[in-house]
Amino acid sequence: MDWQWSYFIEAALTEDIGAGDITTDNLIPAEAWGRGCIVAKEPLVVAGMDLVKGVFEFLDPDMDCLVTVADGESAAAGDVVFEVSGPLRMILTGERTALNFLQRLSGIATFTRDCVAELEGTGTRLVDTRKTTPGLRLLEKYAVRVGGAANHRMGLFDGVLIKDNHIVACGGIEKAVFLARQRVHHLVKIEVEVTSLEETESALAAGADVIMLDNMEIDMIKQAVALINDRALVEVSGSVTRQRLRELADAGADIISAGGLTHSARAVDLSMRIEEG
Amino acid sequence: MDWQWSYFIEAALTEDIGAGDITTDNLIPAEAWGRGCIVAKEPLVVAGMDLVKGVFEFLDPDMDCLVTVADGESAAAGDVVFEVSGPLRMILTGERTALNFLQRLSGIATFTRDCVAELEGTGTRLVDTRKTTPGLRLLEKYAVRVGGAANHRMGLFDGVLIKDNHIVACGGIEKAVFLARQRVHHLVKIEVEVTSLEETESALAAGADVIMLDNMEIDMIKQAVALINDRALVEVSGSVTRQRLRELADAGADIISAGGLTHSARAVDLSMRIEEG
Amino acid sequence: MDWQWSYFIEAALTEDIGAGDITTDNLIPAEAWGRGCIVAKEPLVVAGMDLVKGVFEFLDPDMDCLVTVADGESAAAGDVVFEVSGPLRMILTGERTALNFLQRLSGIATFTRDCVAELEGTGTRLVDTRKTTPGLRLLEKYAVRVGGAANHRMGLFDGVLIKDNHIVACGGIEKAVFLARQRVHHLVKIEVEVTSLEETESALAAGADVIMLDNMEIDMIKQAVALINDRALVEVSGSVTRQRLRELADAGADIISAGGLTHSARAVDLSMRIEEG
Amino acid sequence: MDWQWSYFIEAALTEDIGAGDITTDNLIPAEAWGRGCIVAKEPLVVAGMDLVKGVFEFLDPDMDCLVTVADGESAAAGDVVFEVSGPLRMILTGERTALNFLQRLSGIATFTRDCVAELEGTGTRLVDTRKTTPGLRLLEKYAVRVGGAANHRMGLFDGVLIKDNHIVACGGIEKAVFLARQRVHHLVKIEVEVTSLEETESALAAGADVIMLDNMEIDMIKQAVALINDRALVEVSGSVTRQRLRELADAGADIISAGGLTHSARAVDLSMRIEEG
Amino acid sequence: MDWQWSYFIEAALTEDIGAGDITTDNLIPAEAWGRGCIVAKEPLVVAGMDLVKGVFEFLDPDMDCLVTVADGESAAAGDVVFEVSGPLRMILTGERTALNFLQRLSGIATFTRDCVAELEGTGTRLVDTRKTTPGLRLLEKYAVRVGGAANHRMGLFDGVLIKDNHIVACGGIEKAVFLARQRVHHLVKIEVEVTSLEETESALAAGADVIMLDNMEIDMIKQAVALINDRALVEVSGSVTRQRLRELADAGADIISAGGLTHSARAVDLSMRIEEG
Amino acid sequence: MDWQWSYFIEAALTEDIGAGDITTDNLIPAEAWGRGCIVAKEPLVVAGMDLVKGVFEFLDPDMDCLVTVADGESAAAGDVVFEVSGPLRMILTGERTALNFLQRLSGIATFTRDCVAELEGTGTRLVDTRKTTPGLRLLEKYAVRVGGAANHRMGLFDGVLIKDNHIVACGGIEKAVFLARQRVHHLVKIEVEVTSLEETESALAAGADVIMLDNMEIDMIKQAVALINDRALVEVSGSVTRQRLRELADAGADIISAGGLTHSARAVDLSMRIEEG
Repeated sequence: MDWQWSYFIEAALTEDIGAGDITTDNLIPAEAWGRGCIVAKEPLVVAGMDLVKGVFEFLDPDMDCLVTVADGESAAAGDVVFEVSGPLRMILTGERTALNFLQRLSGIATFTRDCVAELEGTGTRLVDTRKTTPGLRLLEKYAVRVGGAANHRMGLFDGVLIKDNHIVACGGIEKAVFLARQRVHHLVKIEVEVTSLEETESALAAGADVIMLDNMEIDMIKQAVALINDRALVEVSGSVTRQRLRELADAGADIISAGGLTHSARAVDLSMRIEEG
Repeated sequence: MDWQWSYFIEAALTEDIGAGDITTDNLIPAEAWGRGCIVAKEPLVVAGMDLVKGVFEFLDPDMDCLVTVADGESAAAGDVVFEVSGPLRMILTGERTALNFLQRLSGIATFTRDCVAELEGTGTRLVDTRKTTPGLRLLEKYAVRVGGAANHRMGLFDGVLIKDNHIVACGGIEKAVFLARQRVHHLVKIEVEVTSLEETESALAAGADVIMLDNMEIDMIKQAVALINDRALVEVSGSVTRQRLRELADAGADIISAGGLTHSARAVDLSMRIEEG
Repeated sequence: MDWQWSYFIEAALTEDIGAGDITTDNLIPAEAWGRGCIVAKEPLVVAGMDLVKGVFEFLDPDMDCLVTVADGESAAAGDVVFEVSGPLRMILTGERTALNFLQRLSGIATFTRDCVAELEGTGTRLVDTRKTTPGLRLLEKYAVRVGGAANHRMGLFDGVLIKDNHIVACGGIEKAVFLARQRVHHLVKIEVEVTSLEETESALAAGADVIMLDNMEIDMIKQAVALINDRALVEVSGSVTRQRLRELADAGADIISAGGLTHSARAVDLSMRIEEG
Repeated sequence: MDWQWSYFIEAALTEDIGAGDITTDNLIPAEAWGRGCIVAKEPLVVAGMDLVKGVFEFLDPDMDCLVTVADGESAAAGDVVFEVSGPLRMILTGERTALNFLQRLSGIATFTRDCVAELEGTGTRLVDTRKTTPGLRLLEKYAVRVGGAANHRMGLFDGVLIKDNHIVACGGIEKAVFLARQRVHHLVKIEVEVTSLEETESALAAGADVIMLDNMEIDMIKQAVALINDRALVEVSGSVTRQRLRELADAGADIISAGGLTHSARAVDLSMRIEEG
Repeated sequence: MDWQWSYFIEAALTEDIGAGDITTDNLIPAEAWGRGCIVAKEPLVVAGMDLVKGVFEFLDPDMDCLVTVADGESAAAGDVVFEVSGPLRMILTGERTALNFLQRLSGIATFTRDCVAELEGTGTRLVDTRKTTPGLRLLEKYAVRVGGAANHRMGLFDGVLIKDNHIVACGGIEKAVFLARQRVHHLVKIEVEVTSLEETESALAAGADVIMLDNMEIDMIKQAVALINDRALVEVSGSVTRQRLRELADAGADIISAGGLTHSARAVDLSMRIEEG
Repeated sequence: MDWQWSYFIEAALTEDIGAGDITTDNLIPAEAWGRGCIVAKEPLVVAGMDLVKGVFEFLDPDMDCLVTVADGESAAAGDVVFEVSGPLRMILTGERTALNFLQRLSGIATFTRDCVAELEGTGTRLVDTRKTTPGLRLLEKYAVRVGGAANHRMGLFDGVLIKDNHIVACGGIEKAVFLARQRVHHLVKIEVEVTSLEETESALAAGADVIMLDNMEIDMIKQAVALINDRALVEVSGSVTRQRLRELADAGADIISAGGLTHSARAVDLSMRIEEG
């Protein structure tokens, strides 16, 4: 929703502008007009254009914005991905915030696309995790989708993921799944994290919808997949790198979850070229 | 200030918990007690312990927290850096958010410390930039300080940095510096960004307090430093990588600013081990 | 979470107190002490004690509160369900707000318990809907659980419910379910609303996890249940009254959803008796 | 004020949409257009059209809204009371929230109108109380006015109502009224709650502007009215039902206050019919 | 209410501290302890001690605060009115904000007390107006009460004041008062602003509770008072200075309203003496 | 930034309107149109027109506003400085809030302009302090600039001002300045407050950028200025009145800081004339 994103924009501008952009406010006449182009400095997948646009329109609703490379499209080094024209003050004041959003989200989308490419043809779904920047999860999970992967649950509220502590506290996998099924609403699936074949069997017996094989060796993954035999979705997780994706898919994972998509994607390089008049 | 940091904590918990941690709330008894240890999975410099503590105390003011490796100290792989004991529910619910803060800030501190080490003995100051995660600047700039580097200005409000667009709009460097000096309060310094020796000379003539040599080749940096001859602080900026730091310092930079400290530091790996009872 | 509920409390107190409780502030000495008892005026199931306690503790953290009938327990007419002692001013100022929370939530819990009783022994689950008071959904859905029924999804974010407009826009049930499965994260189930046996068949064929029989006659419900034959969960919805619950369960509903649990439960009658000294 | 109501709208949409309407966002194309009609399913008095309109305009400022039955007007079963056309996504996403506002406020207005009808010709004023849904008082008191009754004070800040605890703490009615008159600003009236003829006499002697006869039998009400003899306004309160209104008016009440107008009005039944294209 | 005042405190600290007290945070060790005394530099009436205390306790809940001259008491030049001891950092950081609250509110209380003294023995009530600092009305009206005067209505919501524009729009005083009486709740009084004897007569005839003689000459005030003859309260307003108060009271005003109490009271001089250790 | 100022406007309107403007809402038809002119009642310098405009546009975006005397321009008694036309309700409701902003900010600008005039031809810069109304600093410091003076630092975050407590805690001026220079970012200057010639010499030796002569006699100021001899900026502070400005400038102050510009400027007199139709 547009209105929800505007809170991210306002927070980012507020932290940067604070009591005022003392350089721009004092040196640029209010009536000066300008034009800015955001240029990719390396190959990348664009993500975050609504935020870029939003930054400038937040500063001045009459700002003239043109997205030249849309979210999800690729840009080569040197490509202009966005143009803005309007009051020069607002362009200079908003420049860094707009770029900060764009470089981070496009960085995630670019890295995600590369990872997704590794899985081409496998039918395995790549998903993110909850290892996101505190406060920016909605944006980062959006960038993952733009990059072509899928989301895991958004938070603790929209999916049940039973880990060892939950199991111990309940007195076993079966009891834990039973309690969850009884208490959680009927549109939420139940996933159980397992680290051995015995646990895998218990999770199956308990009727888990999804079984997460956590940090298992390839061989054990294959055995677990054979054991599960399509009676539950198989998610593989833990120490997932781009290099291991294909191998994990070939081992039979329905889903691979990778925290690195969000917590370790490098920001991509973009800059803004501004002209007056 | 503690109260300001609590807003980061509340925002992060709110986005993760939303309408409730449906796994934990339904499977863990309210009266179950637990103990959690955060363990480093690789060598790192710790940053963000007030946030980690804050997350658990926000969820339950009576939570018992112990910081075993303080901000700014190093931890080896396997080291326990933090312990918490209290209601198991709150430990499980807060775990991911606490780790998300810690892995990102410690990642910045760790990378910064490595970079600072490159400059040992040179007297050159390494500083960050405004290329931070939107909304988290205060935290990321804190992590940079923890890592041993210094901050550049916090935002557009506490330092004047005159770039080419400001100069063109004012009709020259001299006029721009003059206007800034006249209009900005007397505790703020004025920095001018230059890309040539001519501009460097103009900035000096205008009385700039700091001159930023932007994206210059090493040779030109040396010439500029000679020209400036201690009449202004010299900041070197643009395409700064860890590998180039020493060379830039040796060329005479008083200050080197590097966006990579915040926008491209990799999250470090930490996990939480939880025990019941 | 306690902190989330405190926003409901603060909002309610703010709207009642505004610029000040001009009667109490002007007539009651700051040092006067008092004691208040909340008394049930009719048989009811209690729900909302954390809010009642929270109101008085928000006004004065040192207020002494005692819950004598806990959430989920029954009270007879005349029973004291809650006691508070502390500054008389704060008791008088908070009285109405505390009662307003309690009478509404207990009203829902009481009505829900009566409805659940109708289903005793049937194995059918009674659930609420999204027909809640704007802004208070979290509280009202909590009261439904206290009353012994279960929740449906909390909002638009934690469950897929495909209605006729979604189906038409996608070009058929099969395509709609396929798209949802592909795009929504793998811990969310997919429910399809149907109004005929043909649609029921399509939903089954599409692999819907849950099928909602909307506003069907009893006979058609029975036919649909037979058709579905445990291949999906069966939710019955529309014009559900307390009187019809048993009949619907007997027709084979796994789940019955009833908006009336939240939108039409009558507030129950409680009052506060206050003594000075 | 429009801007104040927009906070109710935003809060309601936020709780329903949260991290996104995952059904609509994934199944409905952004460019699909739609048309929605809200239809009354039973006879009712409409209240809340600004909120209904506001919900859709909040989601998309260009939404085309048409109120066909205005606040305060009656609708028969089957009547279309509101039409909206615009992006289908926003219509589907906003539907439930808009209806939730409308069914509650119209429920209050409808019940209020029925009660007011009982008092026709008597000159007695029917008013609400502070027994409203926490956080929604402004809206519910608005619905009472739409239904043809009047408001009592909005909260603790805009009227003095002296109850027995205030009286005891001050040492008598006379002293309490005196103190209130002295300390409260001169545009606020002073009401005293009494339960006997003796107290009625004291309140009169103290110069109360309004005397509330609380939970008195009809005979005592008549005696009190005779005693007061127009020297103060007479408000009757306590166990007021629609059935007793006429009797209380005939006993001489200037004002009858009824908590049931807001806390026990049943939501009326309305639904939305949506068409694509 | 304490919690409401804490928002004023937080807003004031936030605007002063922003990204950090860079002097104190960098020069004062976290473990340094200090002691501060606020000293009156001129004779004054103290107002705002809860805010002063609140500032320091907001910064550190364990701060040790001692109010030595309470709100409403007088202090001579040189008197210590408040003492604080605790972390030196927090004392230095909070000093200016605490003093800013205290100097303004005590300034209003001091000026108000002087004005009230002019009216001694007259029985005339001095009240403030809505001419307050935007956003601080609650605090300033509190200071007026501390100074010994009374408040007028707090805002547009808790009193009816009919001015010429309202009268014209309604078609006469009588109609305006009638409409107000009919529509406004029964605990609010109705005041009419008049500028001539004719209007005074109309207001009386209409049954106004209070009549405001706006900007009238002394002679006309006396005639109006005679005309009104205790049938309504008489408020005198407009160009009220301290010098004219007695004269206006003697002319028969029940109430005199003076905007100058809040908008033109001079801040009084106080400073803080801080000692380390 | 416009959006930041809108929070001041909303807060001010909220405190005045609260639950509604019960006079205007009940007496003025929604469709009535009006026209308002703000008139200066004394000579003044206008400041705050964006707020005045903002108040009316906040209440109704279609309000027609015309600023006839811009910020920084002078108005004579009787001059119309602003005109608004639109819905009469919104004009009446917003009138007082608009005037409250304008009378305060114009008061500061007017007093500031008078003070600046005293310094004509001296080259000395007059600046404000942090002695501002809590919560309104941004606005008041703006009014100071409109009046022709300059700002001192905005808060604790954008300038270092070392006072005696900082010096004692660090163990001397030299050490304090050294620490500050090391830890604070390189665009912030360092000011030291001194009260004697010895301290002045230490501050110079420490390399302070600005030296504040606090509460010194004229003779000592002259000696300090001679001692400093342009090696640092000289700020004079303490007991600064309009009458002493010239003398302080003549003694050699580069900068004079005066808290009175903000904390003791009298509100100027303006009123609004409203016509219907």
